[in-house]
Amino acid sequence: MQQGKLFVLSGPSGVGKGTILARLFVDFHDIEYSVSATTRQARAGEVQGENYYFLSEEEFFQLVENDQLIEWANVHNNYYGTPKEYVDKTLKKGQDIILEIDIQGAKQVRENYPDAVFIFLLPPSLQELEQRLEQRGSEDKRNKKIRLRNAREEMHEKQKYDYVIINDRIEETVDQLRSIIIAESCRIDKEDDN
Amino acid sequence: MQQGKLFVLSGPSGVGKGTILARLFVDFHDIEYSVSATTRQARAGEVQGENYYFLSEEEFFQLVENDQLIEWANVHNNYYGTPKEYVDKTLKKGQDIILEIDIQGAKQVRENYPDAVFIFLLPPSLQELEQRLEQRGSEDKRNKKIRLRNAREEMHEKQKYDYVIINDRIEETVDQLRSIIIAESCRIDKEDDN
Repeated sequence: MQQGKLFVLSGPSGVGKGTILARLFVDFHDIEYSVSATTRQARAGEVQGENYYFLSEEEFFQLVENDQLIEWANVHNNYYGTPKEYVDKTLKKGQDIILEIDIQGAKQVRENYPDAVFIFLLPPSLQELEQRLEQRGSEDKRNKKIRLRNAREEMHEKQKYDYVIINDRIEETVDQLRSIIIAESCRIDKEDDN
Repeated sequence: MQQGKLFVLSGPSGVGKGTILARLFVDFHDIEYSVSATTRQARAGEVQGENYYFLSEEEFFQLVENDQLIEWANVHNNYYGTPKEYVDKTLKKGQDIILEIDIQGAKQVRENYPDAVFIFLLPPSLQELEQRLEQRGSEDKRNKKIRLRNAREEMHEKQKYDYVIINDRIEETVDQLRSIIIAESCRIDKEDDN
């Protein structure tokens, strides 16, 4: 049986990955969602095993030691990771699955799942920034330097992804994400495609 | 300015390419349609320059001689071809454009536009055929041979395309075609992508 495809939705913190996925799943059910493990406290309304697997640090590091996480990272003093078993089982069933992870996590996934489809979600302001930085030289020097460095880092990272979506209008962003998932299901895998 | 992308919708004669495109354009306008030139007579209701450019054989072969057609073929004693100028002008403006052509025509386009996005439209019966041919051996020999050869030719051709859509339910087919066009607009062009 043909394996499912692994999709990775990544991008800068705060860009709106969670919002976009929540909106996607309202009326699109052709892909599974990978629930992350975390050591952070559950917020009001969050459900164990649905929003996250809420674990103690000890439980979390048991997974790390047993190589049961595809990727993991420390974000703002909490640990986050993607349990491997559910992802692999889902792919094996021929079912597509999507991860919502940060840029560092995506790098780890790329090493172990080179055939995954990597989607980079960008804020519209970064695009605007790039255009602005190209068009005018009047910005104060220190500020420009920092912004340029950030822009360069993002641009560099972008080249490792398969798709980029600018999260400008939410409905359009969701439609683009949905389109990528559907289009990939029609895609012929070439031998020279890595 | 970034060039537009050239999309090629191809597939066996009678598979429904025209129907699918007509349906796509009802509520999708992010891509231009390339109007073909033909020497066949206009049918009732067909509009010059909208459905086809209706030309005399002399006019048609003037285009061929002047290298003004991207591809051309003789189908059922009429000539059909894709005028180059409109396609190139559209791509240069950064606008995507889609051609609806037969399998032979697609081969010619591939030689001159290797970066084009090739979409193969298949009838559902061919898929069913493949499955049937695999599963049972009771079919009469001559028939099976022909079908197998056709299936093999189609399968072989499929590998040269980027996407395959099975034209089973029209709404789903149109959604998949639309998704491919949108997804490609988000796609990062890799250096090793040919």
